Amino acid sequence: MVERIVFLNGEFIPEGEATVPIFDRGLLFADSVYEGFGILDSQLVDFDYHMDRLDRSLGELNMPSTMSREEMLSALMKLIEMNGAVEGFMYLQVTRGSGDRSYLYNDSYVPNIFAFTQGEKFAADAPAQPVALATTPDIRWARRDIKTTNLLGQVMAKQAAHLAGAYEALMIAPDGIVTEAGSSSFFFIKDREIYVKPVTNDILHGITRQTMLRVAETFQLRIREENYTLDQVLEADEAFITASSIYVLPVGRIDNTVIADGEAGPITKSLRSAYLELARKEFPKIA
Amino acid sequence: MVERIVFLNGEFIPEGEATVPIFDRGLLFADSVYEGFGILDSQLVDFDYHMDRLDRSLGELNMPSTMSREEMLSALMKLIEMNGAVEGFMYLQVTRGSGDRSYLYNDSYVPNIFAFTQGEKFAADAPAQPVALATTPDIRWARRDIKTTNLLGQVMAKQAAHLAGAYEALMIAPDGIVTEAGSSSFFFIKDREIYVKPVTNDILHGITRQTMLRVAETFQLRIREENYTLDQVLEADEAFITASSIYVLPVGRIDNTVIADGEAGPITKSLRSAYLELARKEFPKIA
Repeated sequence: MVERIVFLNGEFIPEGEATVPIFDRGLLFADSVYEGFGILDSQLVDFDYHMDRLDRSLGELNMPSTMSREEMLSALMKLIEMNGAVEGFMYLQVTRGSGDRSYLYNDSYVPNIFAFTQGEKFAADAPAQPVALATTPDIRWARRDIKTTNLLGQVMAKQAAHLAGAYEALMIAPDGIVTEAGSSSFFFIKDREIYVKPVTNDILHGITRQTMLRVAETFQLRIREENYTLDQVLEADEAFITASSIYVLPVGRIDNTVIADGEAGPITKSLRSAYLELARKEFPKIA
Repeated sequence: MVERIVFLNGEFIPEGEATVPIFDRGLLFADSVYEGFGILDSQLVDFDYHMDRLDRSLGELNMPSTMSREEMLSALMKLIEMNGAVEGFMYLQVTRGSGDRSYLYNDSYVPNIFAFTQGEKFAADAPAQPVALATTPDIRWARRDIKTTNLLGQVMAKQAAHLAGAYEALMIAPDGIVTEAGSSSFFFIKDREIYVKPVTNDILHGITRQTMLRVAETFQLRIREENYTLDQVLEADEAFITASSIYVLPVGRIDNTVIADGEAGPITKSLRSAYLELARKEFPKIA
């Protein structure tokens, strides 16, 4: 097996050689942000939207941008080419950098930036099979809008869901409001209305979620961006999750409740196709 | 300057050579726990209590213990010796290990374990100067009892306190209850009663806090383990913070309010001396 080539601080190197100092603040403090992009037809899905969110995450944490958007696109496209990636996932992480262990930071830190491709074939255009979700309490911090690597809450939620036989977690806040899935955005459809939680600091501002809302606008569907409870969800006609690593997946079951007939809903299937079509239209162009 | 020697997965190596793979789960997911020990007289303070907490943290996250307590003590003492550390701080981190990026984990991961000394001279026996605290909202997750590297909330709190001219943050929950300081436990004294928040999942189970309570029992002081608000704190006769990196530090000011006369309180000074005395009595013995 050929070793994957990864990107690390400007270099393209075999994955086995890619390391960061034990003094990296991402490792010591989770002082670090990331993005994940879908790879489709050897191109990057929603590239500019992801970069907009990355810039916002960096800004919220007072971390500098040390690579321009053009340099980033060029580096990631080179990774795709070197690894022959056609479909899959592109992971990009930016840490504040390395230094003596101190909670306080200053301008002297130089970010560590790395990226790698993952997953060879997602068969994006094949029919998506419905997945099961398991509810878990949402125990995360109050700044879920920043895409940081403080992800242990999600690790615990997704591991618990996995042990319960589900594909993904559906996280419920202490007040009973459904926040989002472990590493994806959640939507449900009832009477041709699409329900999705509004973006606040309570949830990640999902890029696939945002593009999906643009797609849904082209359908004859009313979009209801509002808070909702699990009871409402369990009465849904259809439900689905979105993320850059999965695009759109129908939800067939939540805990022990089958959603509608448990199959991929017809609107969900159409939305997935329309999402992929839009994504392909908007691939970034290298200047 | 001689390069520091650090411990990494069984080896003692120069700090510049100590790295972990970019696929380490501590770096990708903050799927990782840590401990910090005071170094006093070239010995480890509260060693067994810290190891008890480390075992608990590992257990809560279903991470294996791959080094025995004896092996750990031997490794850390060797680090102290190799670096000629007399006073300072010993940092120890255990990550779940490295692998392809997946939220889900299984038994195949092999932990990455590293440790380093930091800070040469704390002058533990010199009079401690009072420090200022700045209040910040407590935005952390719901499992603050596990000592994980999901520390970005604390980084943000301590950086905000620093920019406000304070030494440390004092974090306040949305319901007005004071939780703890950014990286230390908080105590205050009123009418010869010591107030300290009880240990729940809302705060870290501070080891220095716990030893301090044993010290306080030997004084003629009533210990009140109960929740309290900032208003109560600002009326204190004395206040102090504890942590393994600072032992006991008097608090002279919180935001714009001077605590009592702003100097180190007499009980606080006695508690600090008694703490150091007890710590020295309880240094671990290598078999």
